[in-house]
Amino acid sequence: MGRLTGGDPSLLRRINSAVVLHSLRGTDSSTLTDLTRITGLSRPTVEGVVEGLIETGLVVEFVPEEGEARKQGRPARRFRFRAEAGHLLGIEIGAHRVAALLSGLDGRIIGAGSRDVSERAGADDRLERVRAVVADLLRRTGVARSGLRAVGVGSPGIVEADGTVRLSTALPGWTGLPLGERLRRSFRCPVLVENDANAAAVAEHWKGAATDSDDIVFVLAGLSPGAGSLIGGRLHRGYGGAAGEIGALHLLGRDETPEKLLSTTGEPLHPLDEQAVADVFALAKSGDEGALAAVERFNKRLVHDVAALVLALDPELVVIGGWAAGLDGVLPPLRDELARYCLRPPRVALSMLGEAAVATGALRLALDHVEEQLFAVEGTVTARR
Amino acid sequence: MGRLTGGDPSLLRRINSAVVLHSLRGTDSSTLTDLTRITGLSRPTVEGVVEGLIETGLVVEFVPEEGEARKQGRPARRFRFRAEAGHLLGIEIGAHRVAALLSGLDGRIIGAGSRDVSERAGADDRLERVRAVVADLLRRTGVARSGLRAVGVGSPGIVEADGTVRLSTALPGWTGLPLGERLRRSFRCPVLVENDANAAAVAEHWKGAATDSDDIVFVLAGLSPGAGSLIGGRLHRGYGGAAGEIGALHLLGRDETPEKLLSTTGEPLHPLDEQAVADVFALAKSGDEGALAAVERFNKRLVHDVAALVLALDPELVVIGGWAAGLDGVLPPLRDELARYCLRPPRVALSMLGEAAVATGALRLALDHVEEQLFAVEGTVTARR
Repeated sequence: MGRLTGGDPSLLRRINSAVVLHSLRGTDSSTLTDLTRITGLSRPTVEGVVEGLIETGLVVEFVPEEGEARKQGRPARRFRFRAEAGHLLGIEIGAHRVAALLSGLDGRIIGAGSRDVSERAGADDRLERVRAVVADLLRRTGVARSGLRAVGVGSPGIVEADGTVRLSTALPGWTGLPLGERLRRSFRCPVLVENDANAAAVAEHWKGAATDSDDIVFVLAGLSPGAGSLIGGRLHRGYGGAAGEIGALHLLGRDETPEKLLSTTGEPLHPLDEQAVADVFALAKSGDEGALAAVERFNKRLVHDVAALVLALDPELVVIGGWAAGLDGVLPPLRDELARYCLRPPRVALSMLGEAAVATGALRLALDHVEEQLFAVEGTVTARR
Repeated sequence: MGRLTGGDPSLLRRINSAVVLHSLRGTDSSTLTDLTRITGLSRPTVEGVVEGLIETGLVVEFVPEEGEARKQGRPARRFRFRAEAGHLLGIEIGAHRVAALLSGLDGRIIGAGSRDVSERAGADDRLERVRAVVADLLRRTGVARSGLRAVGVGSPGIVEADGTVRLSTALPGWTGLPLGERLRRSFRCPVLVENDANAAAVAEHWKGAATDSDDIVFVLAGLSPGAGSLIGGRLHRGYGGAAGEIGALHLLGRDETPEKLLSTTGEPLHPLDEQAVADVFALAKSGDEGALAAVERFNKRLVHDVAALVLALDPELVVIGGWAAGLDGVLPPLRDELARYCLRPPRVALSMLGEAAVATGALRLALDHVEEQLFAVEGTVTARR
């Protein structure tokens, strides 16, 4: 990539600063000579940029461990990215649980917390639970609330760009909730709200089952299934944020709802009763015939949903997540059916992040936001990745 | 957008040249003063660039009509984009028909031709038919084959980036055919091969029912249905070029094939017998009960396919095309069903380009390729659109 020169000097300073910071973040520490070599910038430019970054608190002189320090006379000064200069939160707000992950600016997780919540809890109660989880997490880790740079949130439903929940059937009182606005009262930093399956797709791509693919579909299996997809490494939200909302697919065919398919009694399960689902999966594993039949019915339905997504999107990889237990049985029939019906069947894998997927993806979205500010300079190409 | 200056002088010349050419293409003709004002470049730069463009044949001095010329003394010299400096072909190779459109560099169509072909014709025969249509079209319009700058081709099946047909069940001998390579023997310019539904999606976006939306799904209804989608104005081909190949969806449910659904005799129609399909639609319009029932069965199936695409992709607009006749009846039930089952139902419209859609899209893809060469400068932002 060519370096662009001339023009707006402050733009140029920002580009150079982003390039140096990016380079520092990729290593434990660097000397000015390292940075000059890696960035192709002149020594005086690098010195000026590093000085500026130290002033903003994003860079600090690296002090090596005792012992190492004095090995070879007087070593060159080293600098490092100050990941602790800011913090990020990734929050999942689910039907049964709220969870939060905390990281520094490098995305490394330094704390986690969660609490159960009733699937019948209203929006106020649920948000109160979120605040409690966050407050406890910050207290335990000793991180100041004012040091948060961005907060990502993953939650079921169609989410508008401003963080308002347009529609969510899974959580009481969620449809129409200005979730972003409500949470922004608790934080002074940007709050980014994302559909839970979308967040999970981002998470599996970041550090889960999909790190080696940029074209994926993540299926959040459940009584109300959803999906998130990345195309060319970028989240595909759809025109109205509703891409992957496949929960209605069964209504179109003659298939029954997952609640009915998984029932062993003839009576449908409660739409949010995931314990009952776990029981059916456990029974099936123990060989119970009724449960086996129920799981088979459910798997067939899931295969159908996934096939529709695959035919529409043609991903390289499908990741199945959502329910922690019982889903491993769905992979063989899914692979078989996709091989039969898809012109080019994708690879299929189970989620590696399990129930941490949504909060992890929410954290990654917060990190993307901060990196955008730190490393990207509008209208120019910088050395990201 | 800021202008970038300095650096590589030949890069800068290319950028300036692209900017001036782009500006000229947007009007009938411009004076040097117009161009200086519009581009923000200096007068000497504009003069140099225009001179260079005249040498390449892309720009010519504009000679106004007699009468207008002498109205106001001696007018400033005017220049125009020379659309006739090169030509483009858009070709459809279908089951029953091959068709071609010819345009200048501005994309305005200056000639068209088509011939019927048997659905049982082998690849050699079909390609021979294509060559005959093109030869005839060039002869009639007096355009030299050597003046072709790019050829776009739309055809059923999954098409690799190099123009090889990976899989096509609709045309005999098509699977595995190195279609791009075969056609390149007839043309000295780039030949771009695209799936037919993808080409049609591009066409409707260019000058059809989807000019006001960048997020669309185009459904090529037929006995072997397919779909093409644009996301953010760009074609979404999928990881392996198979996105939208929804023909297999019915295999997953208990639905029958379109050939059976549309049959009024109990015997399925021949998979490529579109005349029989037209007959059923005509009968249904005349009130025939058996045909009405068949069309209703087929519409239900089409609605299901479209709903699966919509739930996966969440487009702003769905365009239904393919069969010229009979499809208008599908819009009301499609709108109703999408409103019931989609969390955010898209708008639905009929194709405006009808049977010209595939060739028109193929032409647009050829034009995109040429514009990329004329107007885009790698690694920089130019004033496209």
